[in-house]
Amino acid sequence: MTVIGLGNMGTALAAAFLERGHPTTVWNRSPEKAKALAERGAQVAATPEEAVTAAELVIACVLDYDALHTVLDPVADRLAGRALVNVTSGSPEQARDFRDWATARGATYLDGAIMTTPPGVGSPDMMFLYSGSQDTFTAHKETLDVLGDALFLGTDPAVASLYDAALLGLMWATFNGWLHGTALVGADQVAATEYTVLANRWLGGAVSGFLTRYAAQVDEGHYPGDDATVDVQIATIDHLIHAAADRGVDNALPELLKAGMEQAKAAGHGGDSYASVIEVMRGKGRANA
Amino acid sequence: MTVIGLGNMGTALAAAFLERGHPTTVWNRSPEKAKALAERGAQVAATPEEAVTAAELVIACVLDYDALHTVLDPVADRLAGRALVNVTSGSPEQARDFRDWATARGATYLDGAIMTTPPGVGSPDMMFLYSGSQDTFTAHKETLDVLGDALFLGTDPAVASLYDAALLGLMWATFNGWLHGTALVGADQVAATEYTVLANRWLGGAVSGFLTRYAAQVDEGHYPGDDATVDVQIATIDHLIHAAADRGVDNALPELLKAGMEQAKAAGHGGDSYASVIEVMRGKGRANA
Ligand SMILES: NC(=O)c1ccc[n+]([C@@H]2O[C@H](COP(=O)([O-])OP(=O)(O)OC[C@H]3O[C@@H](n4cnc5c(N)ncnc54)[C@H](OP(=O)(O)O)[C@@H]3O)[C@@H](O)[C@H]2O)c1
Ligand SMILES: NC(=O)c1ccc[n+]([C@@H]2O[C@H](COP(=O)([O-])OP(=O)(O)OC[C@H]3O[C@@H](n4cnc5c(N)ncnc54)[C@H](OP(=O)(O)O)[C@@H]3O)[C@@H](O)[C@H]2O)c1
Repeated sequence: MTVIGLGNMGTALAAAFLERGHPTTVWNRSPEKAKALAERGAQVAATPEEAVTAAELVIACVLDYDALHTVLDPVADRLAGRALVNVTSGSPEQARDFRDWATARGATYLDGAIMTTPPGVGSPDMMFLYSGSQDTFTAHKETLDVLGDALFLGTDPAVASLYDAALLGLMWATFNGWLHGTALVGADQVAATEYTVLANRWLGGAVSGFLTRYAAQVDEGHYPGDDATVDVQIATIDHLIHAAADRGVDNALPELLKAGMEQAKAAGHGGDSYASVIEVMRGKGRANA
Repeated sequence: MTVIGLGNMGTALAAAFLERGHPTTVWNRSPEKAKALAERGAQVAATPEEAVTAAELVIACVLDYDALHTVLDPVADRLAGRALVNVTSGSPEQARDFRDWATARGATYLDGAIMTTPPGVGSPDMMFLYSGSQDTFTAHKETLDVLGDALFLGTDPAVASLYDAALLGLMWATFNGWLHGTALVGADQVAATEYTVLANRWLGGAVSGFLTRYAAQVDEGHYPGDDATVDVQIATIDHLIHAAADRGVDNALPELLKAGMEQAKAAGHGGDSYASVIEVMRGKGRANA
């Protein structure tokens, strides 16, 4: 296959293919980045045209969609009959537009989102999300599995980047909650590494169990508060806020979480589970729209 | 042993002991809650005094510290020589004060935090956090392991409830990040249950790996941005904010996360990892204190 774009990520993708013995052609705007890969057996294309025509499967991984068009627009007439897999990050709307652009030129299109950093490429534990042409996914799944666990999310090319945004949002929220707790226990001399062993166990165990249960509640639109109600959580979060305030840790995050719970309570969800907070998250957005 | 307080949680604790064949004495303010446990073999004490004197190990699980004093103050002179394990939720400061109160009466004291809901009691996967008297923990660890995995965090009795607050804060932050993403993908007809399978895999895999790496950075006070810098995250979070705004999902959470990243950047951490955000979380708190 061909890999276009040899930044940190594109280089990791090409290296993973070479490592597994796949014939790989590469191209990058700044040619020096291809050198190390050439030493590992990559064919280096001199132009985007040479790169595109070298293989039926073309993987593009550049900075953004502007860069993508800069590289591919001039060689658009060479895309017919090829499979274009674009793992450049962008919005769901950009993915849809680019699918339209590519299919109008006779290519099949698969949009991808890479849920790891370059050192994670090549590990089957890491998720690579794809959406768009199901045939392209099926035809190339084995090859794509070299990069990480290739998961197909549906034929709407926007879905992979929508999941990408959602999962990154979950990651940042988790990071912030973890940092807040780390600062809290750290004020009483608990090491971050010590706390984090339990934090990870908590996330992977009890918290993950709650998410699974709450997901079913969200799909049903019904949030029974059998175990822990919004009312109980509101009472409990004050312990966190007071303990953090006493220790000089900023409380912007828990205050926001508490406000969300109080809005859910005001909307009649005090006796429901935490999953009911989704109702005000959607509602508020709609009201402001 | 004795269990004082038979609300949802106290009942689950007593039931777990009875299930494993441990002789168990119980007491509750409203006596009717003891009936089902009596049928399963519990000794029902008529008064707190009878309950306390029935065993060397006394576990208290009532609503809060006011209830704890209401029950135990009148029988304080019966505590000498006993091990008091208090799993009532409260603040770190309340735990310290109560340790002082109990040891002044000749009891040894262990403070506990239960990191599960009643249905999780009895599972070795669930964490029960303890701090305070190490001798008491060691002497009764085997018994406490009946309730869940008993973990000792240190001799400061405040530490268990500090961890409790921190881990609950992590849970709520994770809940909110998950709900935001669920609302986002849900706007494009992705089922919450479908999204959550990947969300849980993401949390338990890549995200957990980041936390482990970042914890070491926090302890070292040095945040190399080898993989993903604050600058890159700031650029990426706009995809999330735009996609959510387009779909009528409230952006209070991602806006707060972005503001935290921008404060870290302003403090000189643009090229550092996300873990550097802890510097402004502590710093802001201190500045406001
Ligand atoms: N790194 C990660 O952890 C990660 C994770 C998931 C997704 N991604 C996504 O993967 C994509 C690439 O990321 P990266 O980390 O490899 O970034 P990077 O190291 O900054 O590399 C950017 C790449 O884009 C090329 N490029 C930029 N502007 C161009 C233009 N106008 N014309 C042609 N080529 C241009 C660069 O070429 P030059 O070498 O000539 O500058 C380089 O190959 C991004 O969309 C990113 O969001 C990255
Ligand atoms: N449920 C959970 O998921 C969970 C998880 C972790 C920690 N906890 C903690 O465990 C503790 C108990 O929770 P729970 O769920 O069992 O609550 P609960 O079902 O509301 O039970 C409250 C208990 O406290 C007793 N009580 C309240 N005020 C009292 C007073 N003034 N004098 C004597 N007894 C009094 C109640 O007695 P009556 O029956 O007479 O009212 C009852 O036994 C709380 O600190 C809670 O934060 C609970």
